[in-house]
Amino acid sequence: MSTPIAEVERVIAAFAEAWKGDDMEAVAGLCAFDAEFVNVVGMWWKGRAEIKVAHEFTHATMFKSSRLTILETSVRFPTPQLAIARSRWLLENHVSPDGEPLPARNGVLVNVLALRDGRWSIIDAQNTDIIEGVVSRPQ
Amino acid sequence: MSTPIAEVERVIAAFAEAWKGDDMEAVAGLCAFDAEFVNVVGMWWKGRAEIKVAHEFTHATMFKSSRLTILETSVRFPTPQLAIARSRWLLENHVSPDGEPLPARNGVLVNVLALRDGRWSIIDAQNTDIIEGVVSRPQ
Repeated sequence: MSTPIAEVERVIAAFAEAWKGDDMEAVAGLCAFDAEFVNVVGMWWKGRAEIKVAHEFTHATMFKSSRLTILETSVRFPTPQLAIARSRWLLENHVSPDGEPLPARNGVLVNVLALRDGRWSIIDAQNTDIIEGVVSRPQ
Repeated sequence: MSTPIAEVERVIAAFAEAWKGDDMEAVAGLCAFDAEFVNVVGMWWKGRAEIKVAHEFTHATMFKSSRLTILETSVRFPTPQLAIARSRWLLENHVSPDGEPLPARNGVLVNVLALRDGRWSIIDAQNTDIIEGVVSRPQ
């Protein structure tokens, strides 16, 4: 039988897999209907439908064929039905809005997951780019 | 008697108040001993002590005398003992590492809070700057 930590890690891995395959139906399927998601520039999406549409837009353009690799994930369980999973990631093969290749970048994604009806779903996510060499936003 | 939502909002307000007063003892006091915090450039602090030291550093320099205003906070309770509070904020009066005044900026802060021993504490936080006019990191 699978452990809770393995189940949570499976959801994070499935997110990266869906990203790589530009499969936003699969991304939406990992999120609860009332999930929220804040991306790296502070766009705040509310509900599974908004999350799906927003990712469809970027995956039709700059993230099409890009690869998201989860480098490490740390999982905590504040209650048996709730998990906080924080992952460092690497993004490669993305392009600018004009289609120019861009250098790889790293970030930190926090996912809050809930166990509902025997299944772990993302109920909240927030993403932050890592900017090396500074303690706050570059000026 | 205070409601859970009022208690959670009180913690968020106290964080902004402590920030304004450069009172990192108070910031630490709002966090659980095992809290984690990721700042706007992806620095990942683990535990109350690390969170305190990191904020002491920036509040002795670029954030000294800065003002953090919480513009709005949305609170959800996935379980009665757990809250996800997401706030849009405005930062003013901060300076560059060289001491030059910097323009105000906005961001989104997500806090996960837990009710432990009758008291709401921050157990996780992640911060993201809002960058207007783009759907991903400016290139």
